Amino acid sequence: MNGEPVLVLLIEDNPDHAELIIRTMSEHRIVNHINHVSDGQQALEYLFHQGIYSDPASSPRPHIILLDLRLPRVDGLQVLDAIKQDEELKIIPVVVLTTSEAEKDIARAYDNHVNSYLVKPVGFEEFTKLMDDMGYYWLGWNTNPA
Amino acid sequence: MNGEPVLVLLIEDNPDHAELIIRTMSEHRIVNHINHVSDGQQALEYLFHQGIYSDPASSPRPHIILLDLRLPRVDGLQVLDAIKQDEELKIIPVVVLTTSEAEKDIARAYDNHVNSYLVKPVGFEEFTKLMDDMGYYWLGWNTNPA
Repeated sequence: MNGEPVLVLLIEDNPDHAELIIRTMSEHRIVNHINHVSDGQQALEYLFHQGIYSDPASSPRPHIILLDLRLPRVDGLQVLDAIKQDEELKIIPVVVLTTSEAEKDIARAYDNHVNSYLVKPVGFEEFTKLMDDMGYYWLGWNTNPA
Repeated sequence: MNGEPVLVLLIEDNPDHAELIIRTMSEHRIVNHINHVSDGQQALEYLFHQGIYSDPASSPRPHIILLDLRLPRVDGLQVLDAIKQDEELKIIPVVVLTTSEAEKDIARAYDNHVNSYLVKPVGFEEFTKLMDDMGYYWLGWNTNPA
């Protein structure tokens, strides 16, 4: 990531999962900041600089988006669709992180150009390992758009 | 990957890189088979069941595509575009694996819905490590479409 500050946008309504994700990812020194929103409407307002995020300085563009699917107010698949239909936002890698293994969720996510689809492991240790590997892959190895 | 056989399509014209990628990925027990094509035209014929691949049995659909960019006959970015414009093929994760760090290649790849963009490390050990991590992420953690 060329030494520039790395920002993650976490869209997750489960507070236990959010805490675990933030804690694990923060242990990677490559992540400088995680902005957390807890429903789909708030995610869209953040990304499109609306409502309480109308000052773009309050909602800088993330390098990567971690997206839960079952979200209050606006569903994660609708958030994904809005991101990938937008000419400016569509280049941001979106990783779905969900408990859903339903074929139709997986198919719709890939249809809507998700970059990667991860199913949350049930056990704490495996969840932590996934967060480690995911963070290292996307923020260490992957080359993000400018 | 639910225990089903995992197939990788490797599109790579550099024989040294191809050998290294195949050797490293084969050491992951989760990869069962790698089909290797060495130019963009051959890649398209494989994916669209044309030419020597007109029998679909000779060109089964891969679970993931590793795509070099600088390729003879048809450029990698054109191959990516053809995959992501196709209603059936677009759901297959495509990971670009290239020596190019050019902003315009990165931007065009993300514009064309690449799933991930990796720059080949120069050193052998780092290249091997990347192949390890990449294989483990996409074939171990990532949930691919059916």
